[in-house]
Amino acid sequence: MYRTYNCGSLRIDQVGEVVILSGWVQATRQFGGLTFIDLRDRYGITQLVFNEEQNPALCEKAKGLGREFVIKVHGQVRERSNKNPNRNTGDIEIDVTELSIINPSKVPPFTIEDESDGGDDLRMKYRYLDMRRSPVREKILFRSKVAFEVRRYLTQQDFIEIETPCLIKSTPEGARDFVVPSRMNPGQFYALPQSPQTFKQILMVAGFDKYFQIVKCFRDEDLRADRQPEFTQIDCEMAFVTQNEILDTFEGLTRHLFKEILSISLKDFPRMTFDEALSSYGSDKPDVRFDMTFQDFSGKAKGQGFQVFDQAEVVLGIVAGGQAEHYSNKDIGSLTDWVKRPQIGAKGLVYIKWGDDDSIKSSIGKFYSDETLRIWAQSCGANKGDLILILSGEIESTRKQLGELRLEMGRKMGLMDPKKYCPLWVVDFPLLEWDEDNQRFHAMHHPFTSPKTADIDKMLTGDHETMKLLRADAYDLVINGVEIGGGSIRIHDRKLQERNFKLLGFTSEQAEQQFGFLMGAFEYGAPLMVV
Amino acid sequence: MYRTYNCGSLRIDQVGEVVILSGWVQATRQFGGLTFIDLRDRYGITQLVFNEEQNPALCEKAKGLGREFVIKVHGQVRERSNKNPNRNTGDIEIDVTELSIINPSKVPPFTIEDESDGGDDLRMKYRYLDMRRSPVREKILFRSKVAFEVRRYLTQQDFIEIETPCLIKSTPEGARDFVVPSRMNPGQFYALPQSPQTFKQILMVAGFDKYFQIVKCFRDEDLRADRQPEFTQIDCEMAFVTQNEILDTFEGLTRHLFKEILSISLKDFPRMTFDEALSSYGSDKPDVRFDMTFQDFSGKAKGQGFQVFDQAEVVLGIVAGGQAEHYSNKDIGSLTDWVKRPQIGAKGLVYIKWGDDDSIKSSIGKFYSDETLRIWAQSCGANKGDLILILSGEIESTRKQLGELRLEMGRKMGLMDPKKYCPLWVVDFPLLEWDEDNQRFHAMHHPFTSPKTADIDKMLTGDHETMKLLRADAYDLVINGVEIGGGSIRIHDRKLQERNFKLLGFTSEQAEQQFGFLMGAFEYGAPLMVV
Repeated sequence: MYRTYNCGSLRIDQVGEVVILSGWVQATRQFGGLTFIDLRDRYGITQLVFNEEQNPALCEKAKGLGREFVIKVHGQVRERSNKNPNRNTGDIEIDVTELSIINPSKVPPFTIEDESDGGDDLRMKYRYLDMRRSPVREKILFRSKVAFEVRRYLTQQDFIEIETPCLIKSTPEGARDFVVPSRMNPGQFYALPQSPQTFKQILMVAGFDKYFQIVKCFRDEDLRADRQPEFTQIDCEMAFVTQNEILDTFEGLTRHLFKEILSISLKDFPRMTFDEALSSYGSDKPDVRFDMTFQDFSGKAKGQGFQVFDQAEVVLGIVAGGQAEHYSNKDIGSLTDWVKRPQIGAKGLVYIKWGDDDSIKSSIGKFYSDETLRIWAQSCGANKGDLILILSGEIESTRKQLGELRLEMGRKMGLMDPKKYCPLWVVDFPLLEWDEDNQRFHAMHHPFTSPKTADIDKMLTGDHETMKLLRADAYDLVINGVEIGGGSIRIHDRKLQERNFKLLGFTSEQAEQQFGFLMGAFEYGAPLMVV
Repeated sequence: MYRTYNCGSLRIDQVGEVVILSGWVQATRQFGGLTFIDLRDRYGITQLVFNEEQNPALCEKAKGLGREFVIKVHGQVRERSNKNPNRNTGDIEIDVTELSIINPSKVPPFTIEDESDGGDDLRMKYRYLDMRRSPVREKILFRSKVAFEVRRYLTQQDFIEIETPCLIKSTPEGARDFVVPSRMNPGQFYALPQSPQTFKQILMVAGFDKYFQIVKCFRDEDLRADRQPEFTQIDCEMAFVTQNEILDTFEGLTRHLFKEILSISLKDFPRMTFDEALSSYGSDKPDVRFDMTFQDFSGKAKGQGFQVFDQAEVVLGIVAGGQAEHYSNKDIGSLTDWVKRPQIGAKGLVYIKWGDDDSIKSSIGKFYSDETLRIWAQSCGANKGDLILILSGEIESTRKQLGELRLEMGRKMGLMDPKKYCPLWVVDFPLLEWDEDNQRFHAMHHPFTSPKTADIDKMLTGDHETMKLLRADAYDLVINGVEIGGGSIRIHDRKLQERNFKLLGFTSEQAEQQFGFLMGAFEYGAPLMVV
């Protein structure tokens, strides 16, 4: 037997017990005639004590142990005189009577501590040592816990986890496939799935009703900070439900995970249309931990002789509460440089400082009177002491730029509390996205997404411009400005699906070749399905 | 809203309630002025009733519904006059007041019934229809339930599920890899994992202590009845445990699954050595639902002038209890043909019938007296009325042939009750398997399996013949003659691992190139690990 307890489990109640522990040597310390060893495993750290006077040979052996040696000890649990309140096992220590070395260790190339002295390359090379560090281990434990709680919750809700195959026929979904040559059929290839999209639709047609899978997906794309060629997603699909029921289901899942894993009770999950998100936050994934919504000055600002605004499609601003006195001209200059960087791309930045003393200072003071600008400020609910930042230009880019500026101000003003979680549903996404460069439509979500019921007729009969206005039964879950997930009601009608493929530039032959199987399935009683 | 209940949930308690149901039309029946529809979904079947007299238009619409149409109905739950005790919802029916067709269906190419009229090819082509049939659906639900209960049990036992990558460097494990060409590095390939073997050993070195994963494995091998190129396994690894603790852990998991999913309480999990399994059952995965163990007649049979036995390495038999009177000469003839088929490969079959009347009839009556054969029978615990079947020859093949004959007799005698589950641990497997054709050793389990502690010195210093006798800390779990799983204690010492690679025919360079990463990890404090 290698252990009767793990290194995180002994407490004051076990004092007097003779125990066996195994683990890694985290650190060795000498103190007078005593040798202390911190013994570590996945569960915690327990202090071992060797007494020179009582057992010189054993103590000598202990002194010879290097960092990361794997050892097994027998000993008695006793109460510590100087307790360590930062450690679960901090009330006790082990008076060791036997010591055996299970495996020695070379000196590790970096310290196995929360703050390691190893650089990225070294820690990647010795990944098994890096994973012994708490911050890395905790992330892996966290992920395991999330996966289990997802399964527990969805299983309780009658979802079935169904494994779909990995070696499949290519089903184009926008990204590039990884391919696997077939030995049995030379010249032919399997594809690795970009997602189980078509499989889960088939499962709905098959009547499985509520499907989920925590599943690997493969996309042969270039690396990005939040993207690797293989990644894992929680994949779901439901039949016979409305959009509201779907949102409720996944709101429930999200609440469950935050509660079980982080002990956080999430408040409301407000629902906001895509149009509202764009016009108020300049983003389809707004961070709503703070307000600072867009104010439209277009009506007031234009036609007053200031060319920049007169030529702009829109004049939009945000109110940075209480910041008037905190922003010197130099600070405003830096902020102007920031919005003019190519990543943001604004041409300039207009400000209005409404001083605590009711004074108005502004970069457009030459064009608008103090009284006028004070009215602008009042009209958008600003108060004395606030700073108003304004961008203008073409509507889409101005919204995007101001959205970035809003986030930057949120960061600077400490409004993005990492411990605060504000979920949000963004709904009614456009069905199609017009690609000006290639003069073609892309599916905003994916080619199986249904238009909103009210838009079906328009989609079947409308002209080209009408297609740009179609709204979809598609939704994203956003938390703190990060898209956590999303889904849509599927088209379950062959005619509508064919129309969609046509709009997306598939010929009938291409659609038939690539998706004929799925469209065929729709002819044998497809239920309404979503996620 | 598409439903307030599913098609499996309504009971007598809901009589009077107005409900909404959605599902597939399983069948339509006319009876006088009434039209009955069986509405099906994943959860069950509910009977709908349409009354011609009360609502002729609605009834007309109902009559127009084809098989597998997807419909939604409103109606009131009422008690059935002729209840159907075979159906959970058999006490009630729905008096339908509204009917809408969600999606029509073409006539399915086969019947969606437990016993379908569709052949394999047709059912594969329309897999989404085949999966609507209970037997197929139930298997998929069963699998989902097993996976969840495995996760629940192992999570409770402090196991962590850790996902390992799919696009990896090739780690030869005996089978052929599937490869994935890299777009970023032309001419180079990823391999898909044959199993996460090396990853999980790395995770143990990293201190994760108890790992599991329900994981896809890929082997580019030819298809067999129980093998496909991609398959899923429950993969585990533990550190700091002895073989007994491992066996207890997975005995616990197996008991849990049988209890939770099949409501079966498994009895003992006996443990049997590999040698005993071979000598008593002629198989390393014996079906112990019935006894009929091998009887060794070699000592008694040889040297009595019967050449066949004299020249045989062994003479082995089984006792088929009470079968003497049931086997005519013709039956024995058929059995002889059966063992002589190339799949079995025996040269002949000897029988001794010990009649209820104490008579002896035998195919070797010319060589041995009745008295002698009666003593043989008594010596192996046979009784009057029993049939003894004997094979002889080279030890390994005779055991294998008699093992097959034992199973055949078990089948014929109805001893293989499909509702009875008899688990068994087979332990102490050989470490190495000698390949006579290629004059080389193969790893019986895999190249990381440790010899038994008592055999370590022999392995490091012994000669070639000694290597064949080495026993490993390796074990299989067998249920009803099927290998359910297995594992082994790992080598965690670099010297021993190098010796093993050498025995398996790897040069130092090959071992270093293919497994250097793992062996390097062993030098930084590897714990004892198993599964």
